[in-house]
Amino acid sequence: MYYPDTIQKLIESFSKLPGIGPKSAERLALHVATKMKEEDALSFAKGLISVKRDLMHCSVCGNLTDKNPCSICRDSHRDRSVIAVVEEIKDLIAMEKMREYRGLYHVLNGVISPMNGIGPQDINIPSLLERLKNEEVKEIILATNTTIEGESTALYIAKLLENTDIKVTRIARGLPVGGGLEYADEVTLLKALEGRREIINNNK
Amino acid sequence: MYYPDTIQKLIESFSKLPGIGPKSAERLALHVATKMKEEDALSFAKGLISVKRDLMHCSVCGNLTDKNPCSICRDSHRDRSVIAVVEEIKDLIAMEKMREYRGLYHVLNGVISPMNGIGPQDINIPSLLERLKNEEVKEIILATNTTIEGESTALYIAKLLENTDIKVTRIARGLPVGGGLEYADEVTLLKALEGRREIINNNK
Repeated sequence: MYYPDTIQKLIESFSKLPGIGPKSAERLALHVATKMKEEDALSFAKGLISVKRDLMHCSVCGNLTDKNPCSICRDSHRDRSVIAVVEEIKDLIAMEKMREYRGLYHVLNGVISPMNGIGPQDINIPSLLERLKNEEVKEIILATNTTIEGESTALYIAKLLENTDIKVTRIARGLPVGGGLEYADEVTLLKALEGRREIINNNK
Repeated sequence: MYYPDTIQKLIESFSKLPGIGPKSAERLALHVATKMKEEDALSFAKGLISVKRDLMHCSVCGNLTDKNPCSICRDSHRDRSVIAVVEEIKDLIAMEKMREYRGLYHVLNGVISPMNGIGPQDINIPSLLERLKNEEVKEIILATNTTIEGESTALYIAKLLENTDIKVTRIARGLPVGGGLEYADEVTLLKALEGRREIINNNK
């Protein structure tokens, strides 16, 4: 009402983004209108269209990619005998940023969540089982989040793989590095205690 | 490097926005790629192009508009004898949201700032003077910010209008409504004291 329609529409688009409230949306739209170079705005617009048109999910692992299969699945230097199962693409990215893990991934694109009507068939569990039939996999690392839903999804997948010759592991739960005991919740502390490792064995 | 090029470019575009750091840019780009409906992304893209292509500055007051002159300058119900001089379009919007002011505006699109090499000719001061020659203006309200630069710009314009028959006023400086004295800085408190108004006059 105070803005020309053109700006009003852009404000609405910005405010559809997560974590951007109406005030920030206004500020961002005004920034684009008054401060941003036209070429930058155009390449921004192109980028928005391109991620929707040129990106697809990797048919093997579910990662986002502009070439199918994705660069990780195509990479011949990767260890093809290990698959880390993650919930979302951003979890895959977090793992990649670590620069340590050299195996493959399987992105579930969700978690089992009966409360929201999401069952095992609604996320990429069938495609994981299909993959395990055809690929030479020795270990599945269940790297879903350590939330209730992430834990139960991990448990569900683990059950499915009982009585196969695939090793199934779950990422460790414990104190975050740099975290103090006093700030940890009871469940985390319990998990940290349960998952303790021997550093010196004097009973040799 | 972890992302397909398509996403990487969108992340860069997002991170060019003010107040959006690299982490948020990643989050927003992934949101667009994985969660946003294609039609919403397209209308977002269209909005970005449209604000750069279809918007212009009002030739009269400097406001952003999609029709020239802008809706405020065209509005026949407005009081054409008063012009509020503001720094930026967002200041005009703030005034409009108040829903009390019925006069016209003049957007300087900046402030005089010798430190940044911005002189009176670089902002819309010449067009203001031109306007005053042709329009029947009785009052100029200097509504620039109460920063050092805003104050000196207001003072500069006031000096230019000395010895004309136009009344020149400056918005009041004082305590913000709901603000406590203890939190006010000395200058604000001084301005609040200087700007005090009589509410009862017992010396009638």
